[in-house]
Amino acid sequence: MGDDHHLRCLINGAAAETVSVFDRGLQYGDGLFETLAVVAGRPLYWEPHLQRLMAGCRRLAIPQPDPEVLYREALELVGQHSRGVLKVVVTRGVGGRGYRPPERPAPTRILSIHPWPDHPETWRTVGVRLRLCSQRLGSDAGLAGIKHLNRLEQVLARAEWSDPEVPEGLMLDMDGRPIEGTMSNLFAVTDGLLRTPDLSTCGVAGIIRARIMELAEAMGIPCREAVLDMADVGRAQELFLTNSVIGVWPVNALEDRRWQVGPVTRRLSRALMQDAAGLSATSLW
Amino acid sequence: MGDDHHLRCLINGAAAETVSVFDRGLQYGDGLFETLAVVAGRPLYWEPHLQRLMAGCRRLAIPQPDPEVLYREALELVGQHSRGVLKVVVTRGVGGRGYRPPERPAPTRILSIHPWPDHPETWRTVGVRLRLCSQRLGSDAGLAGIKHLNRLEQVLARAEWSDPEVPEGLMLDMDGRPIEGTMSNLFAVTDGLLRTPDLSTCGVAGIIRARIMELAEAMGIPCREAVLDMADVGRAQELFLTNSVIGVWPVNALEDRRWQVGPVTRRLSRALMQDAAGLSATSLW
Repeated sequence: MGDDHHLRCLINGAAAETVSVFDRGLQYGDGLFETLAVVAGRPLYWEPHLQRLMAGCRRLAIPQPDPEVLYREALELVGQHSRGVLKVVVTRGVGGRGYRPPERPAPTRILSIHPWPDHPETWRTVGVRLRLCSQRLGSDAGLAGIKHLNRLEQVLARAEWSDPEVPEGLMLDMDGRPIEGTMSNLFAVTDGLLRTPDLSTCGVAGIIRARIMELAEAMGIPCREAVLDMADVGRAQELFLTNSVIGVWPVNALEDRRWQVGPVTRRLSRALMQDAAGLSATSLW
Repeated sequence: MGDDHHLRCLINGAAAETVSVFDRGLQYGDGLFETLAVVAGRPLYWEPHLQRLMAGCRRLAIPQPDPEVLYREALELVGQHSRGVLKVVVTRGVGGRGYRPPERPAPTRILSIHPWPDHPETWRTVGVRLRLCSQRLGSDAGLAGIKHLNRLEQVLARAEWSDPEVPEGLMLDMDGRPIEGTMSNLFAVTDGLLRTPDLSTCGVAGIIRARIMELAEAMGIPCREAVLDMADVGRAQELFLTNSVIGVWPVNALEDRRWQVGPVTRRLSRALMQDAAGLSATSLW
């Protein structure tokens, strides 16, 4: 199958693009996913993405996929792509009685490859406009942090605007605290301190978010997870967004507030590019 | 196709049992569903189920299905079943860019027929044991009331126990207030007043819940939606659960508390049976 130029999806290891309508992924959103950058025929940050997927499986009590099988399938799919996006979905599969999971689930694993998005280069260099979403993030400690398939809040938030000049929206929790973008994590720099919202009750613990925190520590930039409010965001001297496909996007506007791309954002953006290039031997961003 | 004895699923009107893995129903839980009792070849309470589905479509901005097409497909599927369960799923279909919905969605409509569950008759007559779930319901006014496909909270709650003698678990919101069962709505009778939890921030507004409230009003039983706490539940003289397949189940135990099937529960259970029989000319429960 590796020489099939049009191969774009593997389901449980076989080239296919459909699943049973009785799959619990469709019936209940009963599953997890990962979205990875592909560069030079390799998925970037495979290991931490795999670990988050495994942690999600443990949290939902879905049998974990075999890491070697998953990696082999990922390589089969991405092998010919110099650049792209790999999506990995694991559901609890078909079965069970109503909401009750089957005693011995047979999970469905879906790997698909997608084109690299054509975001303007300026979003990385001079930053992006961020808007404030009305749709809030509900709190649920049991589901917080993992990347599960219940994503209606993000869908409704992203449906709030269509301006192509605004690539991302900021989502607040039910208490009005900023948590993350619809598809990205948030960082704020205030007086040299780097902070990213605490995700113990909602939000997705991003792979690049974790890597940025590690890089900051290694570079001597104080960094911590914190409960922030909108006043903290307004007072921040720098603001940026992260995810596995965009890397780092500085924020240059949110509502009436404007920012320049600041020195901490620049240093971390460069560090992430070098880190990713070191892993892939090719520059991604 | 009406004479196909094995027809159990229609997707956009055609006999099929698989959907694209790129359907947003699977990718994000971006859709809605209804579960209806089928009796004597007819889906019971079709009209209110249809109205809730339509309301859900409006809330999520998914184009509404044509009611006549949907009803024709429902009849084609259930026509030969004297008794069964009809599930109707409507998703936003394939497309869009990440979470962002496509500008012109082509929804996927999935109708499937399932066997009538073999619940013991005693659950209807002498009641059921209810357990208290640890998994809470997150608050989200934008999603409350509608029957959307993001059901991980219910899945995790239902995975908490496997005792076949306990058919349902009670779920609380984040503030510890009782809201509903994993698959049913809750009613409590206290000093002649019938109350059911307010669902403005979470929960599913059940079709039988609404019908019970109408029947109660017609019978002169005072009834209202209310913010309840667990002390209210403990103090109640009668407790019962409702959904479209079970009808009314009296609750005879919750934790250490025990109940007898009370007069209000009996009257409403009988009234619902008569109401359903009047619609279907056949007794369902």
